[in-house]
Amino acid sequence: MGDNHTSVSVLGLGLMGQALAAAFLKAGHATTVWNRSADKADGLVKDGAVLAANPADAVAASDLVVVCVSTYDVVHDVIGSLGDALRGKTVVNLTTGSSEQARQTAEWAEKNGAKYLDGAIMITPPGIGAATSVLFYAGDQAVFDAHEPVLKLLGGGTTYLGTDHGKPALFDVSLLGLMWGALNSFLHGVAIVETGGVKAQEFLPWAHMWLDAIKMFTADYAAQIDAGDEKFPANDATLETHLGALKHLVEESEALGVDTELPKYSEALMEGIIAQGHAKNSYASVVKAYRRPNQ
Amino acid sequence: MGDNHTSVSVLGLGLMGQALAAAFLKAGHATTVWNRSADKADGLVKDGAVLAANPADAVAASDLVVVCVSTYDVVHDVIGSLGDALRGKTVVNLTTGSSEQARQTAEWAEKNGAKYLDGAIMITPPGIGAATSVLFYAGDQAVFDAHEPVLKLLGGGTTYLGTDHGKPALFDVSLLGLMWGALNSFLHGVAIVETGGVKAQEFLPWAHMWLDAIKMFTADYAAQIDAGDEKFPANDATLETHLGALKHLVEESEALGVDTELPKYSEALMEGIIAQGHAKNSYASVVKAYRRPNQ
Repeated sequence: MGDNHTSVSVLGLGLMGQALAAAFLKAGHATTVWNRSADKADGLVKDGAVLAANPADAVAASDLVVVCVSTYDVVHDVIGSLGDALRGKTVVNLTTGSSEQARQTAEWAEKNGAKYLDGAIMITPPGIGAATSVLFYAGDQAVFDAHEPVLKLLGGGTTYLGTDHGKPALFDVSLLGLMWGALNSFLHGVAIVETGGVKAQEFLPWAHMWLDAIKMFTADYAAQIDAGDEKFPANDATLETHLGALKHLVEESEALGVDTELPKYSEALMEGIIAQGHAKNSYASVVKAYRRPNQ
Repeated sequence: MGDNHTSVSVLGLGLMGQALAAAFLKAGHATTVWNRSADKADGLVKDGAVLAANPADAVAASDLVVVCVSTYDVVHDVIGSLGDALRGKTVVNLTTGSSEQARQTAEWAEKNGAKYLDGAIMITPPGIGAATSVLFYAGDQAVFDAHEPVLKLLGGGTTYLGTDHGKPALFDVSLLGLMWGALNSFLHGVAIVETGGVKAQEFLPWAHMWLDAIKMFTADYAAQIDAGDEKFPANDATLETHLGALKHLVEESEALGVDTELPKYSEALMEGIIAQGHAKNSYASVVKAYRRPNQ
């Protein structure tokens, strides 16, 4: 529930920016919008939004300024030269970028006397406003707390991650990476079972059940990694056992004429970690293949 | 609940074979065991199992013969020359191998007058006997039905997949592949968030939440694939949008010094499918990268 006396400005009206502005409007907030191509604002203006002539006017109109453009370079193009006009404003930047860009933009905002939250949106535009939709924020906790009710209009899963402005970007790409890894291997599995005349939807419930098992494995591995002692006890199966099972996947894929690049990627990965002495360790030891060298 | 008047023979007493025999014994079944190195039977014999001197004696002792050895070649070494001694027996082969090996072994068993089920065990030995443990079986349904109560002693998730003896092997490697894909990308994500001082266990609940979202994506994609029309409607996000987001993962990984091979694998994969004209399609279209050329 937002305090609908807060006025909000939304800069950037791509599909996502439009969805954000629509959510604020719907809850009764005075909403000012701006976009480089003004026609993107037509629908929102019809629904009661005020179209600002330029970014300076948009920023002047509200204490809460939400920015959602294509890149951080565009963020700086749009509000980078506003200087004193930003003083006292709260800038919530939902533009996708790197953790370093987020941290640098936070520094720049602070120098200009603005409060700054960096955020990442974990859903597509149609999901904006839904009870389960997750958006991550980081920055000063008092700033987040002050605006949480309004930000929650964008998604019930609105979550404060802490003071490191780079964290939403790190969580964003890490979770998306998990998605691509899981989707790729799911689709590879579909390609395999299809050779036996099995429909993807017949395979699906087993994949879902298996994803639940994978949750349990990852809970064990996360604790092992956090222990920091590199003991990686094989509570479920050793890496050597994994590699043995993987060879069946490689051979089956070869025999069926299904892609072998993906299983061979895992094979080389496991062999590399085994060569580092982890044959009897759990799969958690594979994290060492991904870490930067000095960690 | 097993009919504990059925006697069972278990051939192969690795960790898994020992767990299988122990589950039968525990339920009160007369259990005969055999292993090339007889000392592996010591614990089971103490618990009431009968040690057979050779595979022929083990097969003669029971109508239900469970085989769990290292490879299908070993299966044939062990019982391949028993000929008429197999007539009327039910052989349940839980050895890990390829779908083709399973189908060929089923043919061989049939020629020898044996009933034959091929199976795959989706858990590690300590999971044998648990209510949630999944074991897949395929073969003649009447044979499965006749032995289902006894087989259920090995896992509450005992599941009949149909008459194609190759199907358990296909499901086995496909699900394991899903696991490695998800685990790899989870560990890659851990390596990324670690650079921001984030513990794996802090990332974990978000990864779990995200795996639930991934379940929903896969349900949509499975239906799209089964439609067979290659329309792949982008109900959530286009492949082009995925690729745009992926580039952030590649750049973030590069900037942090974290592994870039895994995200670059996905990048090349998506670019390849986009080059085939699927830029505006859903991620389901990536299945085309994995299928054998004639599908």
